Amino acid sequence: MRRTSFASMPCPVARSLDVLGDAWTLLIVREALAGARRFDDFVEILGIPRTTLTSRLNGLVDAGVFTKRRYEDSPPRHEYVLTEKGVALRTIVVSLLQWGEEWGEWPVEGSPVELRDRQTGQRLWFDQIDRETGRRIDEIDVERVVTR
Amino acid sequence: MRRTSFASMPCPVARSLDVLGDAWTLLIVREALAGARRFDDFVEILGIPRTTLTSRLNGLVDAGVFTKRRYEDSPPRHEYVLTEKGVALRTIVVSLLQWGEEWGEWPVEGSPVELRDRQTGQRLWFDQIDRETGRRIDEIDVERVVTR
Repeated sequence: MRRTSFASMPCPVARSLDVLGDAWTLLIVREALAGARRFDDFVEILGIPRTTLTSRLNGLVDAGVFTKRRYEDSPPRHEYVLTEKGVALRTIVVSLLQWGEEWGEWPVEGSPVELRDRQTGQRLWFDQIDRETGRRIDEIDVERVVTR
Repeated sequence: MRRTSFASMPCPVARSLDVLGDAWTLLIVREALAGARRFDDFVEILGIPRTTLTSRLNGLVDAGVFTKRRYEDSPPRHEYVLTEKGVALRTIVVSLLQWGEEWGEWPVEGSPVELRDRQTGQRLWFDQIDRETGRRIDEIDVERVVTR
């Protein structure tokens, strides 16, 4: 059953969730950001049912998150490539990852996944800072204002 | 129907989505961050079915995102207050908001929701930067490494 559509809500959070509001969707994007492109790769890595994957990928192509590209003619085979809009989802995946790392229940050693700089090998941890003033989000009293 | 549980997957993204992998859940958190605490306030603001709200709030209390607090004895009434773990979800909600603002389809004027500093009234826009080097996420070749 399709849940309530959030597309008509005026808030960008709701509209984003209308595209992404499904746990599989963000895991598909997670793997695409890590390099996966082929249908069978997503199936193998995620253990996602093929019908679910088909429906999610079609939705993400319609939403402009992926483009579908033929890479083989016989038999015809396609790969799914993140658009610029899709790559921009990295901020959301990273926020989810860091929240899970910081607040999830892990054995003493912490989570088994790390972000690193591929060039230097250094571990990465991202803070959200205001572009204008450089202050961290947790130092600011953030107000959400509906302007119309 | 309950979807596949992601709690057993080793990645923090998957574990986070096991708590949050539902569009209503993040909208409830969005309103809680904006100050909502009472059951009826969530219903009124979101238009969420009461049975759905009950089930999501119970799940979020179990997950340590909200605490449930009695604020009236007769009749007994409760409010739902974000824990520190819950407030930390702000980074995810902000990432969703900014992605929707930047990539959603809006009339020419842009989305009707803005983030502002409650003290100064200045508009806010958050970048993700590496805590150690100060570089922006889009300047870094980020690699996700599974360590065990």
